[in-house]
Amino acid sequence: MADQWQSSMDHAVAIARRAGEVVREALLDDRAVMTKSSSVDLVTQTDQKVEQLIIQSVKEKFPTHRFIGEESVAAGESCVLTDCPTWIIDPIDGTTNFVHAFPFVAVSIGFSVNKQVEFGVVYSCLEDKMFTARRGKGAFCNGQPLEVSEQKDIQQSIVATEFGSSRAPEAVDRIFCSLKNVLSVPVHGLRGAGTAAINMCLVASGCVEAYYEIGTHVWDVAAGSLIVSEAGGVLMDVEGGEVDLMSRRIIAANNRTIAQRLVREIAPFRPPRDDAPLPNQ
Amino acid sequence: MADQWQSSMDHAVAIARRAGEVVREALLDDRAVMTKSSSVDLVTQTDQKVEQLIIQSVKEKFPTHRFIGEESVAAGESCVLTDCPTWIIDPIDGTTNFVHAFPFVAVSIGFSVNKQVEFGVVYSCLEDKMFTARRGKGAFCNGQPLEVSEQKDIQQSIVATEFGSSRAPEAVDRIFCSLKNVLSVPVHGLRGAGTAAINMCLVASGCVEAYYEIGTHVWDVAAGSLIVSEAGGVLMDVEGGEVDLMSRRIIAANNRTIAQRLVREIAPFRPPRDDAPLPNQ
Repeated sequence: MADQWQSSMDHAVAIARRAGEVVREALLDDRAVMTKSSSVDLVTQTDQKVEQLIIQSVKEKFPTHRFIGEESVAAGESCVLTDCPTWIIDPIDGTTNFVHAFPFVAVSIGFSVNKQVEFGVVYSCLEDKMFTARRGKGAFCNGQPLEVSEQKDIQQSIVATEFGSSRAPEAVDRIFCSLKNVLSVPVHGLRGAGTAAINMCLVASGCVEAYYEIGTHVWDVAAGSLIVSEAGGVLMDVEGGEVDLMSRRIIAANNRTIAQRLVREIAPFRPPRDDAPLPNQ
Repeated sequence: MADQWQSSMDHAVAIARRAGEVVREALLDDRAVMTKSSSVDLVTQTDQKVEQLIIQSVKEKFPTHRFIGEESVAAGESCVLTDCPTWIIDPIDGTTNFVHAFPFVAVSIGFSVNKQVEFGVVYSCLEDKMFTARRGKGAFCNGQPLEVSEQKDIQQSIVATEFGSSRAPEAVDRIFCSLKNVLSVPVHGLRGAGTAAINMCLVASGCVEAYYEIGTHVWDVAAGSLIVSEAGGVLMDVEGGEVDLMSRRIIAANNRTIAQRLVREIAPFRPPRDDAPLPNQ
């Protein structure tokens, strides 16, 4: 049964590429004609359109599979991971980048069975880079094997993170506290692509040693998490425990030394979990 | 005399492309074999090699022209802008990115006469994007005309900046103070490509509304400054006065509204000027 999920993975790669084309066209064509005030509508429309495209095509092929999608959850569907085969989808990771045509925009598709990610596909559609990983079989970019950086010295490392979308003063304070601590280690540099999925692919590619963030969602990190671990990297909670993709907190690093060093610098906080009961439930 | 400097510009584009090839090869070939501990040497060697490649080829064609180059200044040459035709060169803008193969690395060539930038060439060599501007004749990327964003609302804007290379606590404090102010406006997003030249090309391309930084050098910004203004953008000092490329402080924005709004948020400080007399002079 080693290749039990291979046909699902093949389908994920094909549909991610098709979704990426839709994103790219929306960005290049629709953006040229839209007025600035409608940019949010363009995001929402494209997000929903791409998520539906992916879900519909999967449903036709794998009618028993379940879904957790950013847009479906926004529309009120539940975000609880069961043991069933589940597609975890972010149709556009990097929506702010998308609105501004900043060159990092990704389609992210993770696939989980028994609450374990079996494969992950991240298509960086403006760069035309297809990142893939199958559990136990390595990680690849456009077919080339990926390997994390061998660096063990944090001072020689680039760390990726994001300011996040919360502008709540308390969260901003914690985020800046962490940032300043990490910068002052000192690290070699701080970067942020503006998308969790691509930040994780940068870890897997060895371009940055680590990525951490508090505030991610499961659909941002499900695919990327497997790509990092299959490229030889490690995942960790920001307080050093085991990572929990629903907890909205993550460190993805090239090795444990770097991950644990970051734990010492991060000012942790706990956003509401992705799988918290909805207010009306 | 409108096209007096066209042949120099043509040469700049050709040599930037050739330099970019050398950078790309160093990154892809040499990086694969080097040990991590020698990464700094690789930067230094490639920086010097590329700067010499550019200077030698220009000297052969334009023997009376002068130069301000990052590596030459590091080696003790003066960094004073005269009225003479002067090539202002950063052989690798984004050296930290270069070491880590982070995908933004640029060759930057500005050309100044009577202390005014006549043309600017920024070659983003991993993306293979050639940005060019000739004073009064517009800005281009791979031959396509560039235009800044029309956005006038800072809250709908992405702002690019960098943490800079100083880890001196006082500078870090000012940099974080500015960052937090800007984020809390709130802006739509904060980004940083890791190179001033490419950050400015992102402004010119309309992907980010503005870029600001304290700590840049004249070779980082000479070419980019013309690319921004020829794409319809504005340059400003971080305290709102006229920009001075030797002052190591810059705002490059899509329009004056956004630039002036940033002035209110930036905590200014004054690093030593690029054209400050050397200690022994």
